[in-house]
Amino acid sequence: MSGDTVDTNSNYLAQSLKDLGLVPYIKKVVGDDQELLVSSMRELAAVSDVLVVNGGLGPTIDDLTATALAEAAEVSIARHPIALSTLEKWASQRGFNLTESNLKQADLPESCEIIANPHGSAPGFTLELRGCLVMCTPGVPSEFKPMVEAELLPRIRDRGDIAATSKITRLRLFGITESGLQDLINESFPDWPGEVDLGFRVQMPVIEIKIVTVGSSDNTLNDEWTARFTHRFGDYIIGRDSTRLSQALNLALLEANKKLAVAESCTGGAIAAAITSEPGSSTVFEAGFVVYSNEMKQQMLGVSPSTLERHGAVSEETVRELVTGALGVSGSDLALAISGIAGPSGGSDEKPVGTVWMAWGDHSTTKARKFFLPIPRHAFQRTATAIAMDLVRRQILGLSTDVDYFSELRRR
Amino acid sequence: MSGDTVDTNSNYLAQSLKDLGLVPYIKKVVGDDQELLVSSMRELAAVSDVLVVNGGLGPTIDDLTATALAEAAEVSIARHPIALSTLEKWASQRGFNLTESNLKQADLPESCEIIANPHGSAPGFTLELRGCLVMCTPGVPSEFKPMVEAELLPRIRDRGDIAATSKITRLRLFGITESGLQDLINESFPDWPGEVDLGFRVQMPVIEIKIVTVGSSDNTLNDEWTARFTHRFGDYIIGRDSTRLSQALNLALLEANKKLAVAESCTGGAIAAAITSEPGSSTVFEAGFVVYSNEMKQQMLGVSPSTLERHGAVSEETVRELVTGALGVSGSDLALAISGIAGPSGGSDEKPVGTVWMAWGDHSTTKARKFFLPIPRHAFQRTATAIAMDLVRRQILGLSTDVDYFSELRRR
Repeated sequence: MSGDTVDTNSNYLAQSLKDLGLVPYIKKVVGDDQELLVSSMRELAAVSDVLVVNGGLGPTIDDLTATALAEAAEVSIARHPIALSTLEKWASQRGFNLTESNLKQADLPESCEIIANPHGSAPGFTLELRGCLVMCTPGVPSEFKPMVEAELLPRIRDRGDIAATSKITRLRLFGITESGLQDLINESFPDWPGEVDLGFRVQMPVIEIKIVTVGSSDNTLNDEWTARFTHRFGDYIIGRDSTRLSQALNLALLEANKKLAVAESCTGGAIAAAITSEPGSSTVFEAGFVVYSNEMKQQMLGVSPSTLERHGAVSEETVRELVTGALGVSGSDLALAISGIAGPSGGSDEKPVGTVWMAWGDHSTTKARKFFLPIPRHAFQRTATAIAMDLVRRQILGLSTDVDYFSELRRR
Repeated sequence: MSGDTVDTNSNYLAQSLKDLGLVPYIKKVVGDDQELLVSSMRELAAVSDVLVVNGGLGPTIDDLTATALAEAAEVSIARHPIALSTLEKWASQRGFNLTESNLKQADLPESCEIIANPHGSAPGFTLELRGCLVMCTPGVPSEFKPMVEAELLPRIRDRGDIAATSKITRLRLFGITESGLQDLINESFPDWPGEVDLGFRVQMPVIEIKIVTVGSSDNTLNDEWTARFTHRFGDYIIGRDSTRLSQALNLALLEANKKLAVAESCTGGAIAAAITSEPGSSTVFEAGFVVYSNEMKQQMLGVSPSTLERHGAVSEETVRELVTGALGVSGSDLALAISGIAGPSGGSDEKPVGTVWMAWGDHSTTKARKFFLPIPRHAFQRTATAIAMDLVRRQILGLSTDVDYFSELRRR
């Protein structure tokens, strides 16, 4: 209610409900006010089959969900044995004792059932209220979102007469905008059938496409249009379901039995961090060099002072020498180098903020490309990181590395 | 309701209302359903002094705000002369004729008053309903947001007895859990006054505390309790408002006129990436070494093979040698090194997954600490990155680096 936090949980839930062919009926947001919570739960339960309550499960005094639901349902609060043992296990794994505040998270409405929360200390719980299934869930997005598909959707599906014969194919694309993709789909598939629903979800920098056939017992329709889509846009597809770009790159490296080294200037370690955020990355990642200053470019990776002087740190020559240096120092099979102007300052007329050079190669061949990403610093770093990882992925898989990434990002 | 659009209008309005010392009471979101809109308007008007209705003013058949409000207030719909002339002016400036769809935007509840919308074709309008001032506004953010300060806030202020004297202080803390902090506050301040409201927001890995005094003309109360809070928890406070840990570290480095180098194993570049995500970081950051393999630890930073053999890569000896190596190679004033087992595999009985060593120092002294963070890989990397940055921040500021980070994270 303060406006400090933008709610993305309800969007995530609404998007996920599409898989069941459902649209939410009412969303209501109220502050930490017991009376208002109680009346809202009663009012919404009276007009709904399922009510998802989000937030207010924490250990502090302004976390009122359990007491409000108990009051709404006219049951008492009791220490729930499963919630307690979950909390105890959570605490013992971390080697500390539960305080009174922690224990409050196990004080739940009597006769409620627990919903597992694998990513946090407070479990969710369900209770019947006025013929409505009320599901109370944690507000922290990293806890809530994994619970939607694992815990909420199955309970919602079980609740009623909801088609269980739908098929959903999720494809993950990188390098194309949502509107660009929509235009190309309209153009490429004038005959796309109405029974095959196409959903978009932007999870920067990746777009997820859902191909959904609901209520049909005939999955061949889904398979057929997934195949046609893949044939047309396969170049941009990095994987299925929740595949991240770093996962796709690491998988390509693993299957090619190659190790990568990375020399980063403007991304400051973000590429190395993305690759090593994935389990098992030590098999495919050798070393990272965050060569932020010109001195470090020379000293760590042997870029020649005359190259830096003549062409500058943001130049084809410099990134090519960084690749050579990274291959030499690390002994890895492949190397990737990046140097650019992330801004907000540091640009010039010749090389404005947003200019970035990337090079990648092995001990025999190196390629280089220039991009222009005139977007804020954080977006620049995130986009440059993603493009760089995708270029190496494409190189390894034998796909074109001359792809026109996003229509709006012009090469200069 | 589809989840396709994230609502930022209500956040913008709530943030703006803070200037009047107001917090919204209820937010309700419903789809394009006349009956539900009418009942929602009546219900909300009955419990509020002001109701802002956002969206549904457009020219299409699913834009129902005007007809719903008319039905809720039991008045008829009529073509509003001011709305009509606004529309006509808007169209003539653009050189086109108004269609029937356009004209629908001038059909408003009888006796309503117009709110100017300088950035769009559809004006807003207000109507009294059950003693509540209902203000209907366009949903397009670029139209709505400029109207908040110009049109909505003055009408809300005129509506009643609103104090313009609230004060909000936002403090950002790192190194303590929400529940631990709540316990310590209860213990330290049994006399915390009811008029001073305390709000928590977890923005992993930082906690934000809001100290709010509403409706008091006496800001000294806020200042006094902010001072008492700061006196008690100052050690954990990294800054005010939206301060990030990387910002706090970079500021400390800048003010001390020091440059940092970072040698990372288990965090894989995430520390360097966090530091360099901040504008101006080239002034305080010299170089990053992502020494993922034992070979790289030796070759890039001169860790001795016998140290690695006798003590292992995750050891006090190794991280201390990494600091020495990073200082030597980079010539920076300070260096930070980290080596640990992020998991999910790679642990042993002696060094289980979650074990991590950190060392930091300058050319004369190096300190080292061990932590145990038995949490999933992403959380491990994020938490280790944050602790490491905070240790350097504390070192520079002369604060204790022996702090007991989070009660649940025990040193082993």
